[in-house]
Amino acid sequence: MHRSNGECFEGSISADPAGAGAGGASDFLQLDMGDAPVGGRADWLAGQLRRAIADGRLPVGSKLPATRVLATELRVSRGVVTEAYRRLGEDGQLAGRGRGGTVVVAAPVTAGGEKTPRPGRAPGVPFGAVPGADVFDALRAAPARIDLSPGVPDLAAFPRAAWTRAERAVLAELPAAEFGYGDPRGTPALRRAVANWLARYRGIRADPDEVLIVSGTAQALGLIAQVSSRDGIRAVAVEDPGSLGVRQHLAHWGVATPPVPVDEEGIRVDALRASGARAVLLTPAHQFPTGVVLGGGRRRELMGWAAEGGLIVEDDYDAEHRYDRAPVPALRSLLPEQVCYAGSVSKLLAPALRVGWLLAPAAYREAFVAAKRFADLGNAVLPQLVLARLMESGELERGLRLLRRRHRRRRDAMIAAIAAHLPGATVHGAAAGLHLTVTFGAEAVPGADTELAAAALARGVKVHPLSWHAQRPYRPGLVLGYAARSPGEIAEGVAVIGEVAGSRSGGPAGLGPDRARGRGVPGEIAGSPGG
Amino acid sequence: MHRSNGECFEGSISADPAGAGAGGASDFLQLDMGDAPVGGRADWLAGQLRRAIADGRLPVGSKLPATRVLATELRVSRGVVTEAYRRLGEDGQLAGRGRGGTVVVAAPVTAGGEKTPRPGRAPGVPFGAVPGADVFDALRAAPARIDLSPGVPDLAAFPRAAWTRAERAVLAELPAAEFGYGDPRGTPALRRAVANWLARYRGIRADPDEVLIVSGTAQALGLIAQVSSRDGIRAVAVEDPGSLGVRQHLAHWGVATPPVPVDEEGIRVDALRASGARAVLLTPAHQFPTGVVLGGGRRRELMGWAAEGGLIVEDDYDAEHRYDRAPVPALRSLLPEQVCYAGSVSKLLAPALRVGWLLAPAAYREAFVAAKRFADLGNAVLPQLVLARLMESGELERGLRLLRRRHRRRRDAMIAAIAAHLPGATVHGAAAGLHLTVTFGAEAVPGADTELAAAALARGVKVHPLSWHAQRPYRPGLVLGYAARSPGEIAEGVAVIGEVAGSRSGGPAGLGPDRARGRGVPGEIAGSPGG
Repeated sequence: MHRSNGECFEGSISADPAGAGAGGASDFLQLDMGDAPVGGRADWLAGQLRRAIADGRLPVGSKLPATRVLATELRVSRGVVTEAYRRLGEDGQLAGRGRGGTVVVAAPVTAGGEKTPRPGRAPGVPFGAVPGADVFDALRAAPARIDLSPGVPDLAAFPRAAWTRAERAVLAELPAAEFGYGDPRGTPALRRAVANWLARYRGIRADPDEVLIVSGTAQALGLIAQVSSRDGIRAVAVEDPGSLGVRQHLAHWGVATPPVPVDEEGIRVDALRASGARAVLLTPAHQFPTGVVLGGGRRRELMGWAAEGGLIVEDDYDAEHRYDRAPVPALRSLLPEQVCYAGSVSKLLAPALRVGWLLAPAAYREAFVAAKRFADLGNAVLPQLVLARLMESGELERGLRLLRRRHRRRRDAMIAAIAAHLPGATVHGAAAGLHLTVTFGAEAVPGADTELAAAALARGVKVHPLSWHAQRPYRPGLVLGYAARSPGEIAEGVAVIGEVAGSRSGGPAGLGPDRARGRGVPGEIAGSPGG
Repeated sequence: MHRSNGECFEGSISADPAGAGAGGASDFLQLDMGDAPVGGRADWLAGQLRRAIADGRLPVGSKLPATRVLATELRVSRGVVTEAYRRLGEDGQLAGRGRGGTVVVAAPVTAGGEKTPRPGRAPGVPFGAVPGADVFDALRAAPARIDLSPGVPDLAAFPRAAWTRAERAVLAELPAAEFGYGDPRGTPALRRAVANWLARYRGIRADPDEVLIVSGTAQALGLIAQVSSRDGIRAVAVEDPGSLGVRQHLAHWGVATPPVPVDEEGIRVDALRASGARAVLLTPAHQFPTGVVLGGGRRRELMGWAAEGGLIVEDDYDAEHRYDRAPVPALRSLLPEQVCYAGSVSKLLAPALRVGWLLAPAAYREAFVAAKRFADLGNAVLPQLVLARLMESGELERGLRLLRRRHRRRRDAMIAAIAAHLPGATVHGAAAGLHLTVTFGAEAVPGADTELAAAALARGVKVHPLSWHAQRPYRPGLVLGYAARSPGEIAEGVAVIGEVAGSRSGGPAGLGPDRARGRGVPGEIAGSPGG
């Protein structure tokens, strides 16, 4: 136990303002003049600097403190520091850069603590048989000329000027206390703005107190897994095909993801019922990856299932992007007490903002607040306030309107390119969203689409094989994002896919009509270029 | 299964550019003109708007879309929208505001969907017997004139202008792709800047690839709990006294926190060894809350313990703030393979930024990357890049130097106020950090300091009772943050505490020398004002 009295008081309130007894001490390299011999301080200091440069604590390019500052901290005359810097300057290790200060310009030739080169994380081939937990990181890290991965809006449209303007305005009036720890649920301003946004665009009536601000849908999924696990829910049924990323997140948190088939009306509620799962995760407004809208009959069936105690997780990931069809209100608007609703700005503005929201049934709300508190004490405050401003001022809405026009043109460019270069492919889900899906044939062909995606990547075009997003055998296909690319890039990328697919038809992957298993459906096959 | 061919293609690429068959449709309130009777469109639209205002989807103050925009989306003549707006204007529910657009100004008197008033979360009395998981939220929400809670730097010193400048510079040159999903480990620029910072100021040599950017130490603790749990570590020993918040975080993640006593040399390593714990969490540079520095002998003992397989979690929460003593290099600099190191900008800049870093032993590194990926896919990009800029430009360092001078003055003001108003109290840990601790007497007095803190809060002064931060009976005391308050506020706050303590001496809580249990130590007791 901490029993002695006054030891800290006595020790700490010494008469020596720079502390450290014999000499001064600096946080910079934890230098302590108490360690230096009295007659050789410049020597000693030069040696300390050499060691720090040699062992990498002072890498090339790093700046040294001003001589005046360091001398004050070490309580030595400025000449001691100047002399030490001068000696390393003579060695060629330091250089003065005028107002830029003194900078490390070279490591010694015989560096004592030379680093062994550390191999970077192996990029890995992202198209193995079973995609690993880091498959999206690996795919993102893979170099490519044209990235047609799904899941991002036109990132070039990010409203940089509006963001800066809003942030300046926020900073101009923010009370200092707001820089401290905040409400783990999020700032009141953003919770209010999100509640208004959801009321206007998603048909959801929510009190701002019901809104939990989270770090994107990824965090929402983790919180949902944690909270529902504690409630005894060990499995959340998912759509099949359905997002691989979502499954990986739930699996990481120890939640099983039994597949439930999706047909042209959306998830098969009879199969959901038969699965016995107590919870299901859905993308009702625009099913990922097929693009199907959950039909009215299915909605009614689902409401019946939920009324018997089922929990619905609604991943409303890209509902605001809609081109050729009527808007679809969120399930949450009908079933507030049975639906955990998750949305984010990842598709509205940018995934890099890592801001989303979660609306939970009342019974779970406190558990979600606790889960968020102990995840990270709540989202960062500044971006929340900036976003709230953009939402409330109408700027986000205006931006979305422009974005949608641009996305539509890109969608059209992709459809035209597919018609030209992949004439036998079937296009799915193009009426809304940021991506579409093409399938080749009606039968599962193991490995066919991963090989196609790998071949396209080898030619510099990045896509998702559809099989990544299916748990059970499914038609080969590709998921193609169009929102982030120009029409020219889209045309070029799809042309490359067409070439690759054409050159592979008849090959072992068998995307052609003449493939070994002989079950091709004429007219749906990726033909030879121009075919 | 999703078997039908072409249904999405056919359905989606309709000739009708606004979609939705009979009429146009808008995301705003999910209006669909297909639902409107042909002869009564303005009527129908006015009805829809009235409903949305009545049921709260359009709260007072929300803006309606411009008539031109809404008319285009609904594919009706602009007159239809103008007429609908006009009718609600006549009801007094809408008002035109020139360029500000049309705004909801009043809810109808007989609101159909009137909300039942929802009780806010009960603020709760934060000073109960056992502090609950939301005790810090409750304390933060409690109104107070002078907040002497520990744990925040001078928030008024946040470099608003430098932050805005750096952000503008970042946005000016950021490639659009950086707005997409990023590396879950953090941006390379910030990992590099943190590695350099840690080398300069904390004696730690780290490759940027070893640095994991996290959402503050709170998230680091959660990740550590998750990763070590998977490695079979179910308990992490903690210092006692030690941070209540840290214990709450670990407990939330299912990790036990056996207490190990702290004395004037820091944690008792013999007691740690006796506890049998495989892991321990420490604040070696400035023990929270006592302010003790881990002594050299203890460091050597700890290294021995770690060499036998013990894992150290180093919470380096305020090491950069140092006034009257030599800097202390981080344990991580000595034991990279036995120490999980956690730091953050919460004490350097602001907790509201929610940015921190975690350096794990190599054996755990991949597991931490996975844990961060599945927590939230990585921190937001913009604040990381802004922070990297402030670190690399030297602005953070300069700011810290100013901050330290200001903090020292505030520390001195608090010590003077304690000498004046709490003359019998013992001050601990004032040589560094953002807070100090005062104790009253040498014996545990259950409930004494929580009652004192509650009484101070009733007088408008917020503090932590020391007993919050002790698992086993400990001397009564208070933990007082000085960094965020002006000298005047500090003097006033401590004077209030002195009055409250004086008026309570002899009372049931027994902080006075004449208390019922009669074990007061004269000279250490909070006396009457001026006594």
